[in-house]
Amino acid sequence: MSRPVSDWSLDLTVAADSGAPLFRRISQGIIAEIRRGRLRPGERLPGSRTLATTLQVNRNTVLAAYEELAGEGWTEPARASGTFVSRALAQVRPAAARRASRRGRPATPMGFDLERAPDLEQLIPAHLPGLQFSGSVPDLRLAPASELARAFRRALVKQARTVLSYGHPQGHPRLRAALAHMLAGSRGLATVSEDVVVTSGSQMAIDLVSRALLRPGDVVAVEQLGYRPAWLAFRQHGARLLPVPVDTGGMQVEALAALTERTAIRAVYVTPHHQYPTTATLTAARRIALLELARRQRFAVIEDDYDHEFHYDGRPVLPLASADRAGVVVYIGTLAKILAPGVRLGYVVAPRSLLASLTAHRFLIDRQGDHTLEYAVAELLEAGDAQRHARRARRIYQGRRDFLARALRRELADALSFTTPAGGIAIWVTAAPGVDVDRWAARALTHELVIATARGYAFDGRPQPHMRLSFAAFNEEELSEAVRRLRRAL
Amino acid sequence: MSRPVSDWSLDLTVAADSGAPLFRRISQGIIAEIRRGRLRPGERLPGSRTLATTLQVNRNTVLAAYEELAGEGWTEPARASGTFVSRALAQVRPAAARRASRRGRPATPMGFDLERAPDLEQLIPAHLPGLQFSGSVPDLRLAPASELARAFRRALVKQARTVLSYGHPQGHPRLRAALAHMLAGSRGLATVSEDVVVTSGSQMAIDLVSRALLRPGDVVAVEQLGYRPAWLAFRQHGARLLPVPVDTGGMQVEALAALTERTAIRAVYVTPHHQYPTTATLTAARRIALLELARRQRFAVIEDDYDHEFHYDGRPVLPLASADRAGVVVYIGTLAKILAPGVRLGYVVAPRSLLASLTAHRFLIDRQGDHTLEYAVAELLEAGDAQRHARRARRIYQGRRDFLARALRRELADALSFTTPAGGIAIWVTAAPGVDVDRWAARALTHELVIATARGYAFDGRPQPHMRLSFAAFNEEELSEAVRRLRRAL
Repeated sequence: MSRPVSDWSLDLTVAADSGAPLFRRISQGIIAEIRRGRLRPGERLPGSRTLATTLQVNRNTVLAAYEELAGEGWTEPARASGTFVSRALAQVRPAAARRASRRGRPATPMGFDLERAPDLEQLIPAHLPGLQFSGSVPDLRLAPASELARAFRRALVKQARTVLSYGHPQGHPRLRAALAHMLAGSRGLATVSEDVVVTSGSQMAIDLVSRALLRPGDVVAVEQLGYRPAWLAFRQHGARLLPVPVDTGGMQVEALAALTERTAIRAVYVTPHHQYPTTATLTAARRIALLELARRQRFAVIEDDYDHEFHYDGRPVLPLASADRAGVVVYIGTLAKILAPGVRLGYVVAPRSLLASLTAHRFLIDRQGDHTLEYAVAELLEAGDAQRHARRARRIYQGRRDFLARALRRELADALSFTTPAGGIAIWVTAAPGVDVDRWAARALTHELVIATARGYAFDGRPQPHMRLSFAAFNEEELSEAVRRLRRAL
Repeated sequence: MSRPVSDWSLDLTVAADSGAPLFRRISQGIIAEIRRGRLRPGERLPGSRTLATTLQVNRNTVLAAYEELAGEGWTEPARASGTFVSRALAQVRPAAARRASRRGRPATPMGFDLERAPDLEQLIPAHLPGLQFSGSVPDLRLAPASELARAFRRALVKQARTVLSYGHPQGHPRLRAALAHMLAGSRGLATVSEDVVVTSGSQMAIDLVSRALLRPGDVVAVEQLGYRPAWLAFRQHGARLLPVPVDTGGMQVEALAALTERTAIRAVYVTPHHQYPTTATLTAARRIALLELARRQRFAVIEDDYDHEFHYDGRPVLPLASADRAGVVVYIGTLAKILAPGVRLGYVVAPRSLLASLTAHRFLIDRQGDHTLEYAVAELLEAGDAQRHARRARRIYQGRRDFLARALRRELADALSFTTPAGGIAIWVTAAPGVDVDRWAARALTHELVIATARGYAFDGRPQPHMRLSFAAFNEEELSEAVRRLRRAL
């Protein structure tokens, strides 16, 4: 009744690549035979000794495989007369599995239909080799890695019982308190810890707000030059986007006002501090007009204050949220720039009923954040380590901004012009008439220099005579080299 | 022309609670006056000396406040004749702000309308004091906290440049490889690192799959006794849920088959290993029938294998995914049980086109996970530390399961009955006729014992004569005490 064991060896060979233990590969080979219909309900398996000899393995290995088959119900409970394929499997059909390749890993088919997914290529540009003048990251060499490691260790050792258990999706109370204190002290927000929801970076803040706020068909106004990952998050939640022009005073709130006369909008997404990507600061008059417009028309102002700390000339401008008396501003911040992009912590400050909704949505997204990390970063904020790091980085970046501005004026005055930005980590330059920035960027690639041009930020994707040159991640030597390559590529 | 400064002091007093530095509170007080229309465009502010004297502050503090006002455009650029409110603010209206309370923090109004949010109360039960017999957490006292802290430190110190920068939303390659190896070695999944998407816990896996798979109106079949946070995530993405009964052999796949004859379903969500909450293992015959049904009807089988490691009698049953030849299974796992719930790492294994979609959706949700943590846990898996911890926990939990089973049989044989579960972290008990479990649970609260009854897991929310008693987080002394209190509450 037992089948020639040579039949098995094929599948056992196939499974040799899988890294699974031997007994498992044997039981899997047997299961495959059952599924193919070559071993039928009620049939007897070879004796363990016989199979062990044929396969040249230890008998205990075969016994372990048989034990597993019994445990999973593939075979009948052990009997003296041998091991039998379970009769309960009578409905097994010689499966479609036969179609699958039996050698090597078959290409997994797809057994159900799928919606078109967001285009990842559009979200994450291919990595191009060379100096990344296009980056939007701070200098990781400055990141307070050891301080963070120490704080993380302290959190795990001293607070293991709380940070390793389930916690509240609004965020660890200690981090919320530290953030509220920081926002009150340096950004004019009258916050206490209940006014803060912690998120996994500013992208989650944007996604959460979209989930809580938007219904399919809602209109969200965005900056005509702006931050694409936010746009895609809004669209993912059914929003229709309408672009608003930007100039050296930030978003043209007058144009937004005109737009809202034609179409009711649900929200506007805006980067008032250092407009992304142009680095322009929204003027005081437009700030007031925007808040007033939102109050009258009852739309939300989603204020993304992604790099508040990096302001070099005078003090940072206070957020719109600090002047919001009507409860229209949803304020989003991040610790990605102050610490490092890999530290996935952001936050939202908003009217409390929105915060309650965000908290519930966060629970459904990932239940809660990493409370060990949240506790550790709270300690860094309380001790002032994070602020010290930010001050040091600001000094260094200011020097780099000035260095790059001088180098550009010296080397490329004929080809581009710019206003030195009061803050941010990049200089937004305008090309001289006749200079095609996209061709320039293409040539720069052959000199191993990666540049971001305006069209990558443009709502309509059309060329504009601007480039964004990021200075924060480069020291002076690297900046000089970048400008040299830029010159050569002209 | 300057106003009596006494007018200001009111607002400065208000802001005293905010924790903001003094100069900021002064500038905010002035901004508030401008916004209220009491200081008009073109008006002159008091001289810095005068204001400093009146407020009894250092003159530099007032200068800092004025500098800030100028930087933000509230006042005209500095002139010898004094500081003037900016004429560009001509459109300021005596704002609605006047309505806001000027003493203490006003309750923030809500300047826009909001959809009804998911009910957080339903998601996170109120914390009730006492022994948590209702928990679904492992014993945090066993968590490998120091190993994790050391690995995190190594990742930060050795890999700062990569883990602190932006990385790929699919997950750190090293963790994906370690997970693929683990799944191949112990769960019969023929995976390589490309077959894995890392998530922030299993809840994010469920949410991501919902986002990628579901359209409003899609039907998802769920277990009649089951995991509510998953249901709410499906509903959040527009799904209509239909319940399928469960028994001691897990989900009644026969009932599912009958259901699919009446209604096309998009997916079924199932916990085959230790059914949640009943701990039943899905029988081999039902496994085969489920895969075959899904293949024929082209629906997805979302397999949540949340506590694979904790199987005590015989070896863990292999996941449905290990037998999936048709590409219908979406396999979800988590490290929350193997390490600790606070370690927010889960994963999905599925056909690659779904994985690509999950990765893109993850980018929109929070860009990427915490790659420092992912790298650190990859090391723990590679070194076998995580597996060693899981083996140790399994031994201990098996002892606790047996201890609780004995204690229940000794103390409460008259009131309840059960089958000792082959795995999981809880015993699912059935009350004797005439015993009302919900009343029992209510009385237990007065004895400081928190119990979970079946109705909390029931799709229809109706009472059933069952309770779930969690043994993993209690040592023998605590288990004895819990059973004593349970007895007393009867």
